[in-house]
Amino acid sequence: MPRYKLTIEYDGTPFVGWQVQDNGQSIAGAIADAFGKFAGETPKVSGAGRTDAGVHALGQVAHVDLARDIEPDTIRDALNAHLRPQPIAILKVEPVVADFDARFSAKARHYLYRIENRRADLALDRDRSWRVVRPLDAAAMHEAAQHLVGHHDFTTFRSTECQAKSPVKTLDRLDVSRDSGEIRCEVSARSFLHNQVRSMVGSLVQVGEGKWNAADLAKALEARDRAACGPVAPARGLYLVRVDY
Amino acid sequence: MPRYKLTIEYDGTPFVGWQVQDNGQSIAGAIADAFGKFAGETPKVSGAGRTDAGVHALGQVAHVDLARDIEPDTIRDALNAHLRPQPIAILKVEPVVADFDARFSAKARHYLYRIENRRADLALDRDRSWRVVRPLDAAAMHEAAQHLVGHHDFTTFRSTECQAKSPVKTLDRLDVSRDSGEIRCEVSARSFLHNQVRSMVGSLVQVGEGKWNAADLAKALEARDRAACGPVAPARGLYLVRVDY
Repeated sequence: MPRYKLTIEYDGTPFVGWQVQDNGQSIAGAIADAFGKFAGETPKVSGAGRTDAGVHALGQVAHVDLARDIEPDTIRDALNAHLRPQPIAILKVEPVVADFDARFSAKARHYLYRIENRRADLALDRDRSWRVVRPLDAAAMHEAAQHLVGHHDFTTFRSTECQAKSPVKTLDRLDVSRDSGEIRCEVSARSFLHNQVRSMVGSLVQVGEGKWNAADLAKALEARDRAACGPVAPARGLYLVRVDY
Repeated sequence: MPRYKLTIEYDGTPFVGWQVQDNGQSIAGAIADAFGKFAGETPKVSGAGRTDAGVHALGQVAHVDLARDIEPDTIRDALNAHLRPQPIAILKVEPVVADFDARFSAKARHYLYRIENRRADLALDRDRSWRVVRPLDAAAMHEAAQHLVGHHDFTTFRSTECQAKSPVKTLDRLDVSRDSGEIRCEVSARSFLHNQVRSMVGSLVQVGEGKWNAADLAKALEARDRAACGPVAPARGLYLVRVDY
């Protein structure tokens, strides 16, 4: 069976998340349904990251196996035609070897978390960013964030529903920077625990607001206790930017 | 009567445009209605630029006269509360002198036009950018655009419905640049004719696609004939970024 790699952009707002669920439309389900409309089969669409409801992607990656060869550009255009008007765009389709696995072959995942630090509501980026009203000290957030970089037990920053076998992960990058009113958190690792980025960003906002200092964040990590985590940041500010193989 | 200057962000998608019209909700009308809900009066909201339906603003400016003094931050917060859930955000309210006029006191208006140059549909920026499928040469667009900078008769790039007395304007800046798949056109002038930015951008896309060269654009300008204009670019890619006083 020929295997294809898909690179996908989506607005996560109207979906129950990446993964097929029985309580509403998922992104993987919408793509599988679109295959059904032109390929005569509804393949399993296996993604690199199981983004939650409301989380966006600029470059999610998935693989599918089809019963017959189809020209990659034909797959891309047919999927896009049948996905309309849903906010999912297939950016690229490439043939890959049979042992390529979008999830397990991934060498690095890159996420972006966007915060708008201002008083007024967001008109243009309402579902695209998290508005935080209290002034945030981005430099303090960045400095504290470096305590999280490296090989750690991230139990504190892991959803209680996380199904990963181990809470130990290696965080390669957590950079916080300010560009005028926007604060951007850029996060990279080979893999993440469930809700890890949103849990870390929520805790960093505690630092940015001055409620925590860098030592408090380090202590929260060392506690290995979900109860030590700050309030989890909302889904709408999170973007799966890129997956490296 | 105290006069206030408002700085406003909006998503133009659901509105008939800035200006009050009888065929649907306008941005100026929504703001006037919001005043009515807390200030006990519905003032005329006079904007710096009459953006069309679907055109966005990062920093539109308007002025209003109120019957009594109200604390500027109170006005801002009350307007935002009463504008919800409409995608209009009042960023700032400032008291101004009685002869400040959002439209006539403006020294410069700055617009941005966003183009996504790619084949796939836009998932995240569907109503925020113009997707152009054919590959665009941004450097050629920028070079040609310099023919439009300066003091010219812009009849070619003016809507037939434009009500300005003269078609002669001074264009201060028209920069076209590429950032990966996005092409950004940054345009500045003291004032613009109706549809001028979208008309210029539409014609520049003819250059970017190789259908026109720089001399063709110069000839279109010299023709002073609306029929010489390229297809007008859609509203959704246009942003009123800032107004200087």
